[in-house]
Amino acid sequence: MRLRNKPWAAEKIANSPNIVPPNPSEYRGEWAAYFNHNGPIHVEVGTGKGKFLTEMAQAYPDVCFIGIEKFDSVIVSAIERAEKANLPNLVFLNEDVQELRSFFAEGEIDQLYLNFSDPWPKVRHAKRRLTHEGFLSMYQEVLKPKGEVHFKTDNQGLFEYSLESFSKYGLKLQNISLDLHNSDISFNVMTEYEEKFSERGNRIYRCEASFPS
Amino acid sequence: MRLRNKPWAAEKIANSPNIVPPNPSEYRGEWAAYFNHNGPIHVEVGTGKGKFLTEMAQAYPDVCFIGIEKFDSVIVSAIERAEKANLPNLVFLNEDVQELRSFFAEGEIDQLYLNFSDPWPKVRHAKRRLTHEGFLSMYQEVLKPKGEVHFKTDNQGLFEYSLESFSKYGLKLQNISLDLHNSDISFNVMTEYEEKFSERGNRIYRCEASFPS
Repeated sequence: MRLRNKPWAAEKIANSPNIVPPNPSEYRGEWAAYFNHNGPIHVEVGTGKGKFLTEMAQAYPDVCFIGIEKFDSVIVSAIERAEKANLPNLVFLNEDVQELRSFFAEGEIDQLYLNFSDPWPKVRHAKRRLTHEGFLSMYQEVLKPKGEVHFKTDNQGLFEYSLESFSKYGLKLQNISLDLHNSDISFNVMTEYEEKFSERGNRIYRCEASFPS
Repeated sequence: MRLRNKPWAAEKIANSPNIVPPNPSEYRGEWAAYFNHNGPIHVEVGTGKGKFLTEMAQAYPDVCFIGIEKFDSVIVSAIERAEKANLPNLVFLNEDVQELRSFFAEGEIDQLYLNFSDPWPKVRHAKRRLTHEGFLSMYQEVLKPKGEVHFKTDNQGLFEYSLESFSKYGLKLQNISLDLHNSDISFNVMTEYEEKFSERGNRIYRCEASFPS
């Protein structure tokens, strides 16, 4: 993603406390109270400009959605989108996924989304891939037993790696699609990247992986 | 596969006892003695015209290869190929995979190949797919602990189904390739189908799946 320097980003974030709650660690284990809603909690890691999560929050009003995005110059677009949509079940955290466990208690999350994550194609960077076992172990802590990771990418190498990594870690794979936009899956909220890449004719790969009970 | 009626097929098979051992159940648990060799035993289910297994037997003289093919009009091509190659480590069984356990003792096989198996695309025929759990349970019996299934197909739907089926059954996936002929895998023996389909520009999918210990 091309990151433009946006000097006003920090101010925009600070002025949107309902969309980007400051000090999210305060709500660790208390997100249901924060949302004043006992529905499932779904988290997107690397939420980018927020299209996917905003449309998901519109489609599923009974689910609470939390998007994590470390780049403030990117998350401002998500804020603008969320302001327009005015959704009580959607917030963004301007944080690094490495700190995931400081924002969520054990088993607090029902489902996790990874969409078009950075492929880090070099083998020596494998540990940075969001489907590396180091991250899976983190996800397992904050997800409920049998919690699911829903993963989409147009990067063939990352998808191959991720299927193997999920499998090696003991997750079960389901609803695999090796060409999502030419499949019979009827409901699919597209990310910004997905729109762009699928228009170019790239295949979109998708799978769901569930942790053991 | 188009099956031509070959009235002479039965005769050809009967006259090739070194390539198609009659009454293979007699060697159940005794294949190492049959080959007079203690190397690993690899089995291809649905071996077709035998190109894959003949070339594998040439490339790996220390492995004993057994191909199973139920259609006599097809296996005759495998016999002709094997006759020319004159390999001590290759036989074919003109049998149905459903009888697999009557030909092999528990844990007798080291590795199993499924190449371009019939996709049986209709959901009501899913049980006939060679990666259905019914077959996996059969393979598990005859394979050693941690025994591997090596699977290739150009059928996207069958590959998606098979990854899920392997995962659900508890096999670990490795060496997944979603476009084998455009990957960095250096050694690959092609089947007859693979040559034809990849020339047409079809992607070839491949994976290895290992049973638990």
